[in-house]
Amino acid sequence: MTSPAPAGPAYRRLSVEERRAQLLVAALGLFAHRPPEEVSLDDVAEAAGVSRPLVYRYFPGGKQQLYEAALRSAADRLESCFAEPPEGPPTDRVARVLDRYLRFVDEHDAGFSALMRGGSVAETSRTTAIVDEVRRAAAEQILLHLGASRPGPRLGMMVRTWIAAVEASSLIWIDEDKAPPAAELRDWLVDHLIGLLTVTAASDEETAAAVADLLAEETPDGRIAGLAHRLAPVAGGAAHLL
Amino acid sequence: MTSPAPAGPAYRRLSVEERRAQLLVAALGLFAHRPPEEVSLDDVAEAAGVSRPLVYRYFPGGKQQLYEAALRSAADRLESCFAEPPEGPPTDRVARVLDRYLRFVDEHDAGFSALMRGGSVAETSRTTAIVDEVRRAAAEQILLHLGASRPGPRLGMMVRTWIAAVEASSLIWIDEDKAPPAAELRDWLVDHLIGLLTVTAASDEETAAAVADLLAEETPDGRIAGLAHRLAPVAGGAAHLL
Repeated sequence: MTSPAPAGPAYRRLSVEERRAQLLVAALGLFAHRPPEEVSLDDVAEAAGVSRPLVYRYFPGGKQQLYEAALRSAADRLESCFAEPPEGPPTDRVARVLDRYLRFVDEHDAGFSALMRGGSVAETSRTTAIVDEVRRAAAEQILLHLGASRPGPRLGMMVRTWIAAVEASSLIWIDEDKAPPAAELRDWLVDHLIGLLTVTAASDEETAAAVADLLAEETPDGRIAGLAHRLAPVAGGAAHLL
Repeated sequence: MTSPAPAGPAYRRLSVEERRAQLLVAALGLFAHRPPEEVSLDDVAEAAGVSRPLVYRYFPGGKQQLYEAALRSAADRLESCFAEPPEGPPTDRVARVLDRYLRFVDEHDAGFSALMRGGSVAETSRTTAIVDEVRRAAAEQILLHLGASRPGPRLGMMVRTWIAAVEASSLIWIDEDKAPPAAELRDWLVDHLIGLLTVTAASDEETAAAVADLLAEETPDGRIAGLAHRLAPVAGGAAHLL
C-alpha cells in the first residue's frame, strides 16, 4: 500500500481486468456513435492508445467479440437505468426511468439505431438475445411499479407493446435529430402508457385492478390529473356518440 | 388457341414466368412456417416437384435469392391487405385491415417471427429494407384514414409507434399459440389506437383536429362509443384526482 507505483509506460501498470475494461470503454465509445460496419479493430486500438496485437490478446475473436462485449456492457448499464424505488406516484417513477433511458439513447445514438434496426453483419443470435434480455428487464420493472410481477396475458402483452412503442419512438427521435426535446418525448410516452393502461382496463379485469391501485397512488396535481384536464376538450367531441 | 396442349411431363409446359412463380410459391410455403435456417434448396425443389439444378437455373443466387424473392412476394401481398376504401366509421376500417393483417401473420407464423425477431443469417440490408417499406406502407394507409397524408411529427410518430406495437403483439401472439383469438386481439389493437390517438390529441393540435374529424364519422353504436361505455368504471376510479 505504501510502495510507489512503478515507473514506465502507463499501460504497464494496468491489471488484466483494468486493461480489458479500458479496451471495452474505447470500443463502446466507438460503437455507440457508428454502425459496427464503420468501426475497425485499428480504430479501437487507436482510441485506447494501444497496439492492435494487444487488442487481439484480450479479444482473440476480434471485432465481433469486442462488439458483443461492448453490447453486453451497454446492456448492463441500460438495465441499471430501469431500477427505480417504488415510492411516489407511479407515473412519476416511469417518467424518471424514461429520462434515464432517453439519456442512454442520446449517448449511444448511431450504435443504438444500427443495433435495433437489424440487418447489420454484427447481428447474431447472441446480440438479439441480449436485446431481448433488456426488453424483458424493462417489462419486469414496469410491471413491478404496476404491482403485477406475474401478469396475466393481456397486461403482459400491453407492457411489452408499450416497450416496443418506446423503442420505435426512440429510433424516430434519433432520425429526426432528437426532436422533440427529450422531456417532451418523455411526457408523451408517459401519456401513451396511461392511455394504453386505460383502454386495456376497459376489457381486462387484471389491468382494471392495477389501474385502480395506481390511481390511488396518484395526486390531484400529478400527471394523470393533468392529462385528464387536457383530455376534456377532446372528449367533448365525442358527445354525440354517448 | 385450338391446338391441344403438348403431351409430356407437366413441367415442360410452364413458361419461364410460370415456372418462376411456381418455385416462389413453393419457397414461400416453406419459408412461411420455418426459420430460413431450416429450409434447404432441396426442400424447395422437392416441394415444387422439380430438380435442384432447375431451381438454380431460376435462382442462381441459391437459397438467399429465393428467400429474398419469397419475402418480396409476401411483402407485396401484405401491402395489398392494407388497402381499405375510405367509407364507414374509420375504426371499423382499421378493424378490417387488422383482420387481414392477422390472417397474414397466422399464415406465415414461423417465417414472420424469424424475420421480425432478427439475428437470422438470411437477414441483410435488403431484407430489412423490405420490412421497412411494409411499415411505411402501413403507416401511409392508417394516416389516409385519419385524413392526414402529410402528418406533422407527433401524429407521424404516433402512427409509427402504434404499428410497432401491432408488430410486437403479433410476435407475442405467435409465441402464445395464437391466444387470444384473432378477433379479440384485433379489438384490443383498435382500442389501443383509439387510446393513443386520444392522449396524443391532448398535447398535439393536428392530432386533436384529426380526432375531431374521426369522431364525426363514428356512430353511437360503434367502437368508440362502446369503448367509452366500458371506460366509465375505470374513469370513476380517478374521481379523487379531478
